Amino acid sequence: MKETSKSEWQTHPIHGIRPIIEAIEAGKEIDKIFIQKGLSGDLIGQLRDLTRKKDIPLKQVPIDKLNRITRKNHQGVIAYIAPVSFQPLQDAISRLEEKEAPLILMLDRVTDVRNFGAITRTAECVGADAIVIGKQGAAPVNADAVKTSTGALLRVPICREQNLKTTLQTLKENGYQAIACTEKTSASIYEPDYTKPTVVIMGSEEDGISDTLLKRADHLAAIPMHGKIGSLNVSVAAGIILYEALRQRTA
Amino acid sequence: MKETSKSEWQTHPIHGIRPIIEAIEAGKEIDKIFIQKGLSGDLIGQLRDLTRKKDIPLKQVPIDKLNRITRKNHQGVIAYIAPVSFQPLQDAISRLEEKEAPLILMLDRVTDVRNFGAITRTAECVGADAIVIGKQGAAPVNADAVKTSTGALLRVPICREQNLKTTLQTLKENGYQAIACTEKTSASIYEPDYTKPTVVIMGSEEDGISDTLLKRADHLAAIPMHGKIGSLNVSVAAGIILYEALRQRTA
Repeated sequence: MKETSKSEWQTHPIHGIRPIIEAIEAGKEIDKIFIQKGLSGDLIGQLRDLTRKKDIPLKQVPIDKLNRITRKNHQGVIAYIAPVSFQPLQDAISRLEEKEAPLILMLDRVTDVRNFGAITRTAECVGADAIVIGKQGAAPVNADAVKTSTGALLRVPICREQNLKTTLQTLKENGYQAIACTEKTSASIYEPDYTKPTVVIMGSEEDGISDTLLKRADHLAAIPMHGKIGSLNVSVAAGIILYEALRQRTA
Repeated sequence: MKETSKSEWQTHPIHGIRPIIEAIEAGKEIDKIFIQKGLSGDLIGQLRDLTRKKDIPLKQVPIDKLNRITRKNHQGVIAYIAPVSFQPLQDAISRLEEKEAPLILMLDRVTDVRNFGAITRTAECVGADAIVIGKQGAAPVNADAVKTSTGALLRVPICREQNLKTTLQTLKENGYQAIACTEKTSASIYEPDYTKPTVVIMGSEEDGISDTLLKRADHLAAIPMHGKIGSLNVSVAAGIILYEALRQRTA
């Protein structure tokens, strides 16, 4: 259960106002931006607008911090590119068309970065074909997530979608069955047939899968509980259901 | 997947040199002790000796910190009692004698407190009868662990043993089979029969199960891997094998 070495996934910062604006406009995924306290001007204003529009975390820091990160002329701004490249869902669906029974994992507001990393690691281990997350309310896809995933985040395609309801609809129209892992059913995870094209849905740490996704699922599936607590950590739960899928697929 | 409320497990500090010495001598499990910087004297020397002997973390802090914790006369020392009570292995074995097929989990140097908490939570959910950990090299059994376990640590008996090798031997002499979850085998976790009295062994995040335990196991059992990373987070792995045990036991 070793971790991969840091150098495999470590991101390098980019600096300078215009290069960062260009990176954002070119569609690069930015993890976070450090900006010097009190900085102003037209270009900085433009950068601030862009980060607001694209929901990129912007953090005010003293100039010393920037100087410690790079000795180059950073102009008061340093950005970290997200180490992961995202794949549009439509591309994932097309890529998987030839495959007999693709397995996709959808995460509905899993917010903890360690859970997200561990789940991605498990998804890689079962050979899952893609992970779908929402653009809002999901754990950040940053270097910490890559580290916890022991690099799996660089191997499993991630689809970051605006609306999980329509995404699920699209998957169903393309022949996928949806299995929602939820406590809100008496059916167990051992009942569905996972050998078909399948999307497994896992819900948030806080309140599970949203109703709008639950009612669109083909199967609700509960992990049996024998204790009094009656709920598992979401990354453990994902491991149990994904391995049930793999068990059936290799039986 | 909700967390339990903090009040359920929050520990209360005890203060005063003599009460703390008495608590230690009475066998109470102490999580940690805060001691005022520069404090000396006979009783303090006695307390220091005890904490060394019992491996209790002792932290030097400014008096202000102690004053913020309690307004009472703390005499420069405040201790936190571990919220968990441990059970001697022999007691656990006797208690389980009448049970048809007890399920015990042994953790060999699982050091991360979040992993330990999540594993305990899973153990509670499958109805495991006890968790065995080592006195050295194990995650601290503290309030953080209780929190991550969502209270499961207060429900599943924990046996904290000096030597896991002799502990395993004792379990085997009492009719338990040992199943080691390890990558070092071609046999899968789906092969053993978990319906007998069983101890499942999980290894450390760093290097898995130690050789001395591996060679005493009745079965080595690997979780199948289809990706390139080839290893899971230990709390996820524990969930997968414990649920395989439960699946067989309820089939």
